[in-house]
Amino acid sequence: MSKLTHADVDARLAGLPGWTREGDAIHKQYTFAGFPEAVAFVSRLVPGVEAADHHPDLTINYRTVLVAYSTHSAGGLTEKDLAGARFVDEVHAGTA
Amino acid sequence: MSKLTHADVDARLAGLPGWTREGDAIHKQYTFAGFPEAVAFVSRLVPGVEAADHHPDLTINYRTVLVAYSTHSAGGLTEKDLAGARFVDEVHAGTA
Repeated sequence: MSKLTHADVDARLAGLPGWTREGDAIHKQYTFAGFPEAVAFVSRLVPGVEAADHHPDLTINYRTVLVAYSTHSAGGLTEKDLAGARFVDEVHAGTA
Repeated sequence: MSKLTHADVDARLAGLPGWTREGDAIHKQYTFAGFPEAVAFVSRLVPGVEAADHHPDLTINYRTVLVAYSTHSAGGLTEKDLAGARFVDEVHAGTA
C-alpha cells in the first residue's frame, strides 16, 4: 500500500469531521456518557478492525476514546488509515 | 484520600510484579494473543472499575494493554491506585 502525501491526507480529512492529522498519524476523540459506554464502543470496533487487519491505537480516559491510525509498515499514512477512520465514524453513528 | 509518598508507593509495588511508578502515576503493560483478547480484557475491568469509581487510563495497541492509575484529585498516588493495580492483576489472573 503506497504512502499518501500529507497534503492528500489533509484534503481528504475535510470530509471526515473531527479527524485531524498529526505527523504520520490521524486521530479523533469520541466522548460518551460514561466509562462503560466508552469501553462498549471499543468492543463494537473489534469485528471490523479484525476483518480489515488494520489496528488503530485506542486510548480510553474515563468517558473519552482517542482513536489513532497510522500505517507503520508504510512509514506514513495510506488509504487503509482513511478507510479505518470512516469505519470508526460509522460504528459511532451506528451505521456500520 | 491522602497522598502517598513516592518511597511508600515504590515499596508497595515490590509486591505487585510488573507495576512501575513514573512520577505521580503507576502503570503496567499486559500482552494478549490478539486484539480481540486485549479488548475483552478491558471489558472485563468495567464492573470493578465502576464499583470502585476510580478509572485507570487504558491504551490498547494491537495486542497490548497499558493500564495506568493516578489520583488526579489528590495530585498524586493514593491507596485507591494500589487497590486498582491489585484489582487489574486479579482480573488478568482470572481471580477477580
